[in-house]
Amino acid sequence: MRVGILGGTGPLGRGLALRLAATGTSVTIGSRQAERAASAAAEIREAWPDHVLAIDGTGNADAAEGDVIVMATPWEAAVPTVREIEERLRGKVVISVANALVREGGDMLALIPPRGSVAASVQASLPDALVAAAGHHLPAPVLGDLGRTLVADVLVCSDHRRATETAMALMGQIPGVRPLDAGGLAQAATIEAFTAVLVGLNIRYKAHSTLGLWGLDGNGRVPPRTAVPSP
Amino acid sequence: MRVGILGGTGPLGRGLALRLAATGTSVTIGSRQAERAASAAAEIREAWPDHVLAIDGTGNADAAEGDVIVMATPWEAAVPTVREIEERLRGKVVISVANALVREGGDMLALIPPRGSVAASVQASLPDALVAAAGHHLPAPVLGDLGRTLVADVLVCSDHRRATETAMALMGQIPGVRPLDAGGLAQAATIEAFTAVLVGLNIRYKAHSTLGLWGLDGNGRVPPRTAVPSP
Repeated sequence: MRVGILGGTGPLGRGLALRLAATGTSVTIGSRQAERAASAAAEIREAWPDHVLAIDGTGNADAAEGDVIVMATPWEAAVPTVREIEERLRGKVVISVANALVREGGDMLALIPPRGSVAASVQASLPDALVAAAGHHLPAPVLGDLGRTLVADVLVCSDHRRATETAMALMGQIPGVRPLDAGGLAQAATIEAFTAVLVGLNIRYKAHSTLGLWGLDGNGRVPPRTAVPSP
Repeated sequence: MRVGILGGTGPLGRGLALRLAATGTSVTIGSRQAERAASAAAEIREAWPDHVLAIDGTGNADAAEGDVIVMATPWEAAVPTVREIEERLRGKVVISVANALVREGGDMLALIPPRGSVAASVQASLPDALVAAAGHHLPAPVLGDLGRTLVADVLVCSDHRRATETAMALMGQIPGVRPLDAGGLAQAATIEAFTAVLVGLNIRYKAHSTLGLWGLDGNGRVPPRTAVPSP
């Protein structure tokens, strides 16, 4: 399986590319400028010479040839980016990880995009794709460093069963991640906005914390958390 | 110190009354109907005969005589309730725990109250009180059962330093709770709405999970979690 990450040259896109490739998945980083994506891919490969990482970089249109697409552009670029390549995304699962946040003084605040969330705006622009929202709360600095242990619950929501399952399977590949089905795409508004609260906590407490739900285990209904590697 | 819980006869109000009283705090449950509050207080005391619980019940106006006030009415009653007793709440810390949620089919959805959050609406109605939002994510069934271990991070936000500190101290009294400063009252919109995501997860996975932040420890900046009692 090949994962294409649109707008994947930012910290979250790079971190996801690294963590997914480290599990053996082929990843293509996309960018508006193909050469920027190729550089990002080379930088990641060179930063982890002891790992075999199948990461390359190209333009967003070519990255959209992947089997599963991750939408990781800045939030304001999400709709224009997917509109340009709408035909290539038909029938595909598109996982939106973008957040609309703004820093105002010491506070991180959530913006409310049209339709309530970036993911809902992307779905409206891609009526023939299956959009899920997932991964917003993962801290990019931890994702981007294989030496750091990642333990996180990842909330996934979508109006398409196949998109939820695909996003949960993809995120669940990453060691330490437990994907959770958080319901329909309407939940993306709150899930995206909550990133501002988490980033604010991380700034205030000088940490890179991750979201966890305590007490969800033990009744056999929760997807297993993949193994947590020792750092 | 005496805590007054306005509209405290619901599951969350009762649960908070129980947990706070179990730490030795005096609690007055308030209700529109004083006799309902008195009954609720008696029921809680009788349910835990092995504990000395200083809980009584009365009308909301009398409960507002407490040193610290918790606002636990249904969300649509919050503003009318505090407006009626605005004079008694002047200069006091008022902790809003109310959530505006609606169930639509299998989904829990967050309503957006005027001003974005219940807490902001309460603050606007009480310009001379110090409003904090806190405790929204605590599961009432766990709070209301001293036999169940509670482990939870409680997000606190306010535009008043004294309100943040008071709410953190009050919540942090409850064994297993770690209060976290989540910033200004603007964050209440997202924190309240996120309750819908958590309740939805608990319905889907048949659990009473609590919110936790992993990786926030260890740098000395995080308030300590109080002891977790064995069940």
